[in-house]
Amino acid sequence: MYRSHTNGALRLANVNEEVTLAGWVQKVRNKGFMVWVDLRDRYGITQLIFDEERTDVAVFEMAKTLGREFVIQVKGTVIERQSKNPKMETGDIEISASELTILNASKTPPFTIEDDTDGGEELRMKYRYLDIRRNPVKENLIFRSKVTQEVRNYLSSDGFIEVETPYLIKSTPEGARDFVVPSRMNEGQFYALPQSPQTFKQLLMVGGMDKYFQIVKCFRDEDLRADRQPEFTQIDCEMAFIEQEDILNAFEGMTRHLLKEINGVEVGDFPRMQYDDAMRLYGNDKPDIRFGMQFGELNEVTQHKDFGVFNNAELVVGIAVPGGNSYSRKEIDKIIDWVRRPQVGALGMVYSRCNDDGSFKSSVDKFYDQEDLAKWAKVTGAKTGDLICILSGDTNKVRAQLSALRMELAERLGLRDPKVFVPLWVVDFPLLELDEETGNYHAMHHPFTSPKPGQLELLETNPGDVKANAYDLVLNGNEIGGGSIRIHDKQIQATMLKHLGFSDEDAKAQFGFLMDAFEYGAPPHGGLAFGLDRLVSILGGQETIRDFIAFPKNNSGRDVMIDAPAPIDDEQLTELSLKLNLKS
Amino acid sequence: MYRSHTNGALRLANVNEEVTLAGWVQKVRNKGFMVWVDLRDRYGITQLIFDEERTDVAVFEMAKTLGREFVIQVKGTVIERQSKNPKMETGDIEISASELTILNASKTPPFTIEDDTDGGEELRMKYRYLDIRRNPVKENLIFRSKVTQEVRNYLSSDGFIEVETPYLIKSTPEGARDFVVPSRMNEGQFYALPQSPQTFKQLLMVGGMDKYFQIVKCFRDEDLRADRQPEFTQIDCEMAFIEQEDILNAFEGMTRHLLKEINGVEVGDFPRMQYDDAMRLYGNDKPDIRFGMQFGELNEVTQHKDFGVFNNAELVVGIAVPGGNSYSRKEIDKIIDWVRRPQVGALGMVYSRCNDDGSFKSSVDKFYDQEDLAKWAKVTGAKTGDLICILSGDTNKVRAQLSALRMELAERLGLRDPKVFVPLWVVDFPLLELDEETGNYHAMHHPFTSPKPGQLELLETNPGDVKANAYDLVLNGNEIGGGSIRIHDKQIQATMLKHLGFSDEDAKAQFGFLMDAFEYGAPPHGGLAFGLDRLVSILGGQETIRDFIAFPKNNSGRDVMIDAPAPIDDEQLTELSLKLNLKS
Repeated sequence: MYRSHTNGALRLANVNEEVTLAGWVQKVRNKGFMVWVDLRDRYGITQLIFDEERTDVAVFEMAKTLGREFVIQVKGTVIERQSKNPKMETGDIEISASELTILNASKTPPFTIEDDTDGGEELRMKYRYLDIRRNPVKENLIFRSKVTQEVRNYLSSDGFIEVETPYLIKSTPEGARDFVVPSRMNEGQFYALPQSPQTFKQLLMVGGMDKYFQIVKCFRDEDLRADRQPEFTQIDCEMAFIEQEDILNAFEGMTRHLLKEINGVEVGDFPRMQYDDAMRLYGNDKPDIRFGMQFGELNEVTQHKDFGVFNNAELVVGIAVPGGNSYSRKEIDKIIDWVRRPQVGALGMVYSRCNDDGSFKSSVDKFYDQEDLAKWAKVTGAKTGDLICILSGDTNKVRAQLSALRMELAERLGLRDPKVFVPLWVVDFPLLELDEETGNYHAMHHPFTSPKPGQLELLETNPGDVKANAYDLVLNGNEIGGGSIRIHDKQIQATMLKHLGFSDEDAKAQFGFLMDAFEYGAPPHGGLAFGLDRLVSILGGQETIRDFIAFPKNNSGRDVMIDAPAPIDDEQLTELSLKLNLKS
Repeated sequence: MYRSHTNGALRLANVNEEVTLAGWVQKVRNKGFMVWVDLRDRYGITQLIFDEERTDVAVFEMAKTLGREFVIQVKGTVIERQSKNPKMETGDIEISASELTILNASKTPPFTIEDDTDGGEELRMKYRYLDIRRNPVKENLIFRSKVTQEVRNYLSSDGFIEVETPYLIKSTPEGARDFVVPSRMNEGQFYALPQSPQTFKQLLMVGGMDKYFQIVKCFRDEDLRADRQPEFTQIDCEMAFIEQEDILNAFEGMTRHLLKEINGVEVGDFPRMQYDDAMRLYGNDKPDIRFGMQFGELNEVTQHKDFGVFNNAELVVGIAVPGGNSYSRKEIDKIIDWVRRPQVGALGMVYSRCNDDGSFKSSVDKFYDQEDLAKWAKVTGAKTGDLICILSGDTNKVRAQLSALRMELAERLGLRDPKVFVPLWVVDFPLLELDEETGNYHAMHHPFTSPKPGQLELLETNPGDVKANAYDLVLNGNEIGGGSIRIHDKQIQATMLKHLGFSDEDAKAQFGFLMDAFEYGAPPHGGLAFGLDRLVSILGGQETIRDFIAFPKNNSGRDVMIDAPAPIDDEQLTELSLKLNLKS
């Protein structure tokens, strides 16, 4: 027993008790005749006091040598503080120390172990074990643990069975590259790490497990973008004998439960929005609907004049920025610069001020009169005092650009309050997506997603129009989950794979086991997967997933703390029947 | 909604209700004028009845076409059965079917979906999704889910935080080969899959997480023995500011909780045994103490005569087999054959019968008289009617041989009742183990295990004698968990690595991050890991872990269902900067 209590435990009621505490030295204040030490552990901070008069000389002298982050054990008596600290849970007491043991010394840490540290991102990642001592990081990890346990308890009590699926599997194309694992025992062959347990969970449905879930690591070898990780965690779920409605209800229930238990927020029925509407009204399949600023499509009310930019555009679309008329010309220029940044990519922006007197003042007054501008205001829902921002161009691009602007301005306007939670189902996703580079269609969700009943024929004629029983759960403008009803008929699956460009041979080699399984009584089934890292960070009121991962990797996929990946020796390569084939 | 009820739900109280059921056709009995169908799902079986007189003609005809494992949906009325089946939970009722939909047909399955199937191991693995439909497999997976949830709830309520550690890490030697993962983004470099989260959980302790657990997949690229899997699941735990006693108490509590909640068995304080005693009394570091048959060392009472076999042996050791005097000469010869099998490897066996009249009859009467044999009986604890079996030779080998014989005979005598649970702590393991091939010592547990206080000096002089704060939890003769108090001092860790043959350079390259961490205030810490697959199978009263894994691999590390591992194409190899280097 290194301690009788943790550092968050002692209160006035414990006064006069003899206690043993252990932990890290947070702070030492040496007044010469008196030394105070803040002792920290996972549970809190307790103040120790060493007193020249009362403390044994050797102990007192040792106390003076303590440095930040030393690990110590202390025996002493709980006494009432003279000047209490109401901000600390243990702020009414302190420990009059009688014995002191240094369990381990510490070098001066490379950054301060405080809520607001002086350490930069790279340094904190290299010494992540020190970063984790900081309250915000520690609390995030504890928060994550709480969320996952809440998920497990909810799903278990709802009859879901957690089943572990294998990690050493077979390459399956899910839109990203697989990480592969050479097999020593099977020469020249490789396992793949799962991008998701998709095929296994479908096989579990064929196997009659009925309701499955798993909180599971998944792997994608992607060129990393900011805030993407090569390994990430999914709450993976699947159900049999269900329709889309059953799945939406089941996981709306789970999400509502989490919002209530974790955040104390009661949310009613989740609104639903068609994918097409989401794109039309927000330019985005994961709209943040905590605020308005819906898109107004302005082609009809802009393409009757001589303004070539609009006349030649596939889409002219605007939003009304609440109170935006107060922006100075300089501020508006900055907004225009912002949309022209390469990350956004607009060529320019037209705007119209909605003046207090009901008149308008636009940047294209040469072409449009007050009557025109009044129509723009009507279509975008702009009110007196607003600013209408308008972009134009190819539909897909301009929607993405205006969506980015909408989010940016909402952020600036404080409309994205992390304490407010507004979930949304986006439904009826297209089955296929056109790859603009290759001109081929590929599966928007994955190749196992079922087209809507009766739309199979459309595949031949208008593949881009086929809708799927696919849905995403959106929370505050972030996709936190997505899923679909799956194909459970071998013939339909074969047709689908053909349309996705698989030869019969490839289809058999990669998915033969699943197609075979469909011949032995596959039930109707479907599911959904939540991105746990994202879910936890949003419930935690933040948007950076890295802050909720104990040991994250950087944007090059490196763990800078352990310095991985790393070279392996030739002997190991030879055992694996491999040779390096370096490009450089 | 494909169903109003599951197939395990309906009772007499539901009679006259209109219901919709869905599931698999377990069995069809066609009497011409009447067709009965057993409809199965995860929850049970419900009997359907189609009746020439009452059922719509088309529906009746369709019912006749149903085959085993067809997936169907049925509407009908719950009626009371004329001949009830008390063995079925739904045996009082049946469904008078009015509508029938075939949701999916099925080919005839390659083996019967019954508790006792006609399918062999390989076939069942290839069609694992059908095997999972069978009750015993399904129940095992549900059982596993229940055990893990129970573990999580227990540890969470005890203040443990579940933290996910990374899977793409760095090669660390833990006695087995690592699986490696080539990094595309870091040319010529590899991640390793964790053999355990050992270093990360230690870093979490340095990071102040205090009480950590994780149920986590681990990976070992071993030449597979029967019942080993290249990927397996661990309940991984670590605590800070603790001594060995704290850890034993914490996990004894958890195990006792599981035995009670899962098996309904109340167990008192777990006995503890020194490693040396376990080896001496049972020839084994994981003794099954549900029965006696302790070893009796017979050197003193055998080496005074002219029997060279015993006189030249390092160890002469015997066990008393209860009631073994009833074995015929032929049966004893079979036992001798058994110990001489290459898997056991004894050269022969000496025995002595303990006759009902108190006399003895041994296979070496030429050398030993009744007085000698009486001493043997005393040392081995043999009683009238027993058989004393004696092996001799090198201590380590002969202990392993006699231990194998002890387990085999206990099995035959029915002394290994899977419903009886007797846990045991084995403590004070040696720190190091001599590799007989190389003559080098290596870490028995792992290189981070702490020697017992005051024994560090022994490392120089008698490395084999150094004991560690290392312990195993044994249940019914199986190691279900093991752990140790770790080193938390950089200097001791460096000394240990030196003794294990690491150069300073290697130590720094492989464990530099951990050694660095020890310089910033590492607390005393230690932990334990349970093998979940093993734990679950033993709690489930079985010893084959494969039966409790949804998608296990075979002894060549292959998943025969999905046919993995598999070759990958040259393009992918090139992207990974690799070339094959085949031996054949």
